Amino acid sequence: MHSPDRKKVVVVGAGFGGLTTAQLLARTDVDITVVDRRNFHLFQPLLYQVATAGLNPSDIAWPVRSVLRHQSNARVLLGDVVGVDTDARCVVLDDGRRLPYDYLVLATGATHTYFGHDEWAGIAPGLKRVDDATLIRRRLLMAFERAENTDDPVLRRALTTFVIVGAGPTGVEMAGAIAELAQHALASDFRSMDPRDTRILLVEGASRVLGAFPESLSEVARRDLQRMGVEVLLNAQVIGCDERGVTLKDHRIDAHTIIWAAGVAASPAARWVGCPADRAGRAIVSADLSVPGLREVFIIGDTASMKTADGKLVPGVAPAAKQAGEHVAACIRAEVQGKPRPARFRYRNFGNLATIGRNSAVIHYGRLKLSGGLAWWLWSFAHIYFLIGMRNRTLVAIQWFWNYLSYGRGARLIVGSDNSGKP
Amino acid sequence: MHSPDRKKVVVVGAGFGGLTTAQLLARTDVDITVVDRRNFHLFQPLLYQVATAGLNPSDIAWPVRSVLRHQSNARVLLGDVVGVDTDARCVVLDDGRRLPYDYLVLATGATHTYFGHDEWAGIAPGLKRVDDATLIRRRLLMAFERAENTDDPVLRRALTTFVIVGAGPTGVEMAGAIAELAQHALASDFRSMDPRDTRILLVEGASRVLGAFPESLSEVARRDLQRMGVEVLLNAQVIGCDERGVTLKDHRIDAHTIIWAAGVAASPAARWVGCPADRAGRAIVSADLSVPGLREVFIIGDTASMKTADGKLVPGVAPAAKQAGEHVAACIRAEVQGKPRPARFRYRNFGNLATIGRNSAVIHYGRLKLSGGLAWWLWSFAHIYFLIGMRNRTLVAIQWFWNYLSYGRGARLIVGSDNSGKP
Repeated sequence: MHSPDRKKVVVVGAGFGGLTTAQLLARTDVDITVVDRRNFHLFQPLLYQVATAGLNPSDIAWPVRSVLRHQSNARVLLGDVVGVDTDARCVVLDDGRRLPYDYLVLATGATHTYFGHDEWAGIAPGLKRVDDATLIRRRLLMAFERAENTDDPVLRRALTTFVIVGAGPTGVEMAGAIAELAQHALASDFRSMDPRDTRILLVEGASRVLGAFPESLSEVARRDLQRMGVEVLLNAQVIGCDERGVTLKDHRIDAHTIIWAAGVAASPAARWVGCPADRAGRAIVSADLSVPGLREVFIIGDTASMKTADGKLVPGVAPAAKQAGEHVAACIRAEVQGKPRPARFRYRNFGNLATIGRNSAVIHYGRLKLSGGLAWWLWSFAHIYFLIGMRNRTLVAIQWFWNYLSYGRGARLIVGSDNSGKP
Repeated sequence: MHSPDRKKVVVVGAGFGGLTTAQLLARTDVDITVVDRRNFHLFQPLLYQVATAGLNPSDIAWPVRSVLRHQSNARVLLGDVVGVDTDARCVVLDDGRRLPYDYLVLATGATHTYFGHDEWAGIAPGLKRVDDATLIRRRLLMAFERAENTDDPVLRRALTTFVIVGAGPTGVEMAGAIAELAQHALASDFRSMDPRDTRILLVEGASRVLGAFPESLSEVARRDLQRMGVEVLLNAQVIGCDERGVTLKDHRIDAHTIIWAAGVAASPAARWVGCPADRAGRAIVSADLSVPGLREVFIIGDTASMKTADGKLVPGVAPAAKQAGEHVAACIRAEVQGKPRPARFRYRNFGNLATIGRNSAVIHYGRLKLSGGLAWWLWSFAHIYFLIGMRNRTLVAIQWFWNYLSYGRGARLIVGSDNSGKP
């Protein structure tokens, strides 16, 4: 039970950073409240597999309450934070409730950005939340159903053309997964059209895919994508999106399904506490991840612009958020025990992974560059290893193994309705 | 590919009856079109487990295309049938398309009925579709979240009171599953309230639960439910439902979550073809399951009032629908081969099963009456056996075994939003 004498730690956001902070304070004499808009922690790196019908939402998500059920100094609150009163040291929820804190950890993540064209959001959904993934899954599968039902070859062509904007890890993984869905899982499902005629275009503004990787690995990824039938368009700027397709600077692509995987827009955490921010809205935090001038407020993960000891920007990936959570927990634990907090966050880079498709992935770790089948198996094991909880590990492992053997996709249900612009 | 010379069989509805018909005609020289509003076949007997967070939707559903992918004389059409032109022998879809048929099989199922109070539908959802199950799951889990967030004991009481209307198999299974969810899976998840204080009421208009079973088994089920903490109200008529609770003839129950498991209303199949119908709208078909006066049109499954050889009504259960599908396939096959069709449908009763909770189920087969742990294990094996496809069998088996060992519920995600009356 919470006690009035103990320091209150409020953690906003139950992603990798926030949850790590809360869990590592289990044996510290503090009262922790974890606030999130959703009742689950999401393993976002595998969300694209939900979107492409390989996995179920609950295979990659865990109720936060369940994760923290045996941690008696933590409670979980389903709620929507709308601001922070830094003078009164209170977090403000949308229903007016105020949560007092002694330490505040903002780990509210980031989303994609349409570069000033928010009107594209309904047309070209991004892939950040479970609802995004099920929406994209529904559109993908419905596009094939409609193509089967039409006799108009031009319409059919547009229905089976898929455009993915942005060739970072999410865009590359989506493009590869859609190619596999069309060429294997759906191959013999239809009668009046062949899903293998599907056109998949990966549109990237920069000069190579997977910009965070070394150039040689970008090249491997591009070649593997093309081998799988994905058309990779580099140096291509999207200047228009509508229900019938995408307009690039020099040409037009007729496509009914557009998926957005570009840009980063941080949550409003920096604004809530008056912290300076970079162009993407990420809070520019001090070396110890606290807000300049507010030692008791930390901002971590994708919503923060964290720097390594040598001044480089820490990438917006799960391991970085977890490490930041560890650091913040260490700071709070130290001070509660009357010791000084560690002066600076040290990021350890455990490498960069991206998967392209069956038997194809790229790994970059220090001077090691790996690609192909071995990289893919390593990627698979790493992801299964990091899934919380035995149940999910087993279920994902079985489904993947099954999909691997059968080239199938089990979770191909079209449920719900699509209220966001397209029927 | 479909040929103009072959007889055209149109099957409307990809439930147990329709799918069986289509599959058993695989080697018959006909062209089959299966039309359904959904792209998947649903194993409805386990839908209550999706509603109570034990299973995922895709664990109990299969894309119809996938089931029929290797059956070259069958095609699948996602579409909404709105009528039948029996003179022109055409099925009419909502987008105006017309499907000509030589044989028509209507297997469009049934739903629950609010006995003339359709305004209760938004307040007290039933459990027929996947979307119903995820809606109920969301409401169940959100009720606990809200109860955790309120300080008002009266409101908390109403939030953690669940009323299930109708004590047939679905109502009994729902009541038992909610009791287990509250008493085990959620038991240590909350801090300011105890889910074990949950009140679960099963309201039944008749004088016993599981009316289709022998009285002694009804009594076992009632006792087991009460042992699990479910209050069973018999001879109790619901006269009002609103967002705050249920009004019975003699008293009022404050409850924010109401689940409807009463009444049967058949699909409009009988109306489409001008077939006589019973009070629930079920088509009163001939002994060979065809429509009187329309030998080429069959109506089967829950939407038909099928009779056994000795004149008894065939129950609306999955095995009966499958057997009807077998019979219709045999009729069509015989006539295509120039032979007479079997004169009458013979129903073989393989027994009646219902589960109440962990280690508790009832089975009735001829003179055999079974209850308790053994019945429960038999129930589990029977359901796993009948799940189509190895993948789903394995996944369901593992999740059940896991839930059995851990008392846990894995699929506890609150996703989407609830647009049907309640927030």
